[in-house]
Amino acid sequence: VTVHFDTVTIIGVGLLGGSLGLALKTRNLAGTIRGVGRREATLAIAAKVGAVDETSLDAAQACTGADLVVICTPAALVPKVLDEIAPACSTTAVVTDVASTKDTICTHAKKTWPSPLRFVGSHPMAGSEKYGPEHSDPELYEGCVTIVEDHPDADAQAQNAVRELWEAVGARVVPMAPNLHDSMVARTSHVPHIAAGCIAQSAAELGDVHAVAATGFRDVTRVAAGRAEIWRDICLTNQKAIATSLVDLGQRVAAVEEMVARGDGEELMAFFRAAQEARAKALGGE
Amino acid sequence: VTVHFDTVTIIGVGLLGGSLGLALKTRNLAGTIRGVGRREATLAIAAKVGAVDETSLDAAQACTGADLVVICTPAALVPKVLDEIAPACSTTAVVTDVASTKDTICTHAKKTWPSPLRFVGSHPMAGSEKYGPEHSDPELYEGCVTIVEDHPDADAQAQNAVRELWEAVGARVVPMAPNLHDSMVARTSHVPHIAAGCIAQSAAELGDVHAVAATGFRDVTRVAAGRAEIWRDICLTNQKAIATSLVDLGQRVAAVEEMVARGDGEELMAFFRAAQEARAKALGGE
Repeated sequence: VTVHFDTVTIIGVGLLGGSLGLALKTRNLAGTIRGVGRREATLAIAAKVGAVDETSLDAAQACTGADLVVICTPAALVPKVLDEIAPACSTTAVVTDVASTKDTICTHAKKTWPSPLRFVGSHPMAGSEKYGPEHSDPELYEGCVTIVEDHPDADAQAQNAVRELWEAVGARVVPMAPNLHDSMVARTSHVPHIAAGCIAQSAAELGDVHAVAATGFRDVTRVAAGRAEIWRDICLTNQKAIATSLVDLGQRVAAVEEMVARGDGEELMAFFRAAQEARAKALGGE
Repeated sequence: VTVHFDTVTIIGVGLLGGSLGLALKTRNLAGTIRGVGRREATLAIAAKVGAVDETSLDAAQACTGADLVVICTPAALVPKVLDEIAPACSTTAVVTDVASTKDTICTHAKKTWPSPLRFVGSHPMAGSEKYGPEHSDPELYEGCVTIVEDHPDADAQAQNAVRELWEAVGARVVPMAPNLHDSMVARTSHVPHIAAGCIAQSAAELGDVHAVAATGFRDVTRVAAGRAEIWRDICLTNQKAIATSLVDLGQRVAAVEEMVARGDGEELMAFFRAAQEARAKALGGE
């Protein structure tokens, strides 16, 4: 049995939205796909590449009668979009999103769709340096880990529909509570990214260090090359977990600084051993 | 004109020492190579792979009459070895080392060989996960950046000999003052390594995060898998530069934490842009 949606509304037709539309089309998982955007030009590209059948500048209108709504705007805009489309969505519509932070959005949605909980947040961890509907890829979600909001009060049918949606386009679904998700991405992605930026700036303060900068430096700082707008938005939408995790990181750095300053070989040895074990543990015993 | 040494004494015949012996032999750059170690078994392997011609457990004795002495022991032992061999070295002997930190060692050597300065520190940045003379590789130094101590009072002949030694085995020599070297490796290698360890531990505190840990996390924390003994020794031999750089990193992390906590989008944008530029600058405009 394969999931099928009669009318799907995709709000935001960038790389993620466009790829989802294309994935649904090529797998015959949807009847009509409506694409919503803020610019006619972007919508035209999404239609041209075959990601959407119809286009609209009006999110609420485009949600009328849809059985599935997927919000693919930047994370910071999702709460506003939720408020905007709430009155237009049918009571049986299933609503999800693709934002990389979940707690703020899922908490906001609980107020918008209080009961039954027809909003179920998602975070497909599809990494790509590309953006824009012109790069839509029907295989983008193939093998992609997708976190799906795990909420005890959630509408079971909506939760199943969201799970089936992602599995149907090839993703591997991992259910998780929104606040745990946010802490985990803060500590495995957001804080490492910020730390990489700090490390790069600390090194660059000494000038051109490239003669001594080996593979390790390149590896550690690689993520610092990401787009500033995206990372600013991530910081603003996952504020609490990132701030808490940065405090934690600062304390750990300060602790090692003390070990180094007092030349405590035993403590340093224990630190480096624990670091190896921690990495292996974080990566599931790799 | 190719450099040639009649008698070379290599103290410490691990991967770096063994590879240097083999590189000198295969390029006919040395007459006799004497290998010094603390264990007969290790010395026997070095001799078997052809890295050394003679072996000895007595460093001072093995330095008698040598025209080049290369100390390839762990960094923490170099000052002790210098004191031990000083009385035995001829006044024309050139002495160098391969330790990854330079200021403590070079300062110590200034006292041991006060004038003329026949000790010229080196740091060949040859990375390998392997260790032990059984992995000796005559091509290990091919294309390898090697920092050579730049000191205004250095004996010009000794400085040239050390430069020629490394260039003869294929390295790219970069002259640098020991304290600048130590700050640069602290900020491009040692502190990134420590930060990676802190990041891994911060993530592992949440348990098995591997479902959400993407390529970025693997990249940032990869160096945390290094050998604990080596990194402890690096911390103990580059104490000052590492401690200073960890304080700098902590301040940068705290500054971003404040931006995140107060939701300052403009400052965050500036931070992420500066991070991109800093990485490019550190890597020489890559």
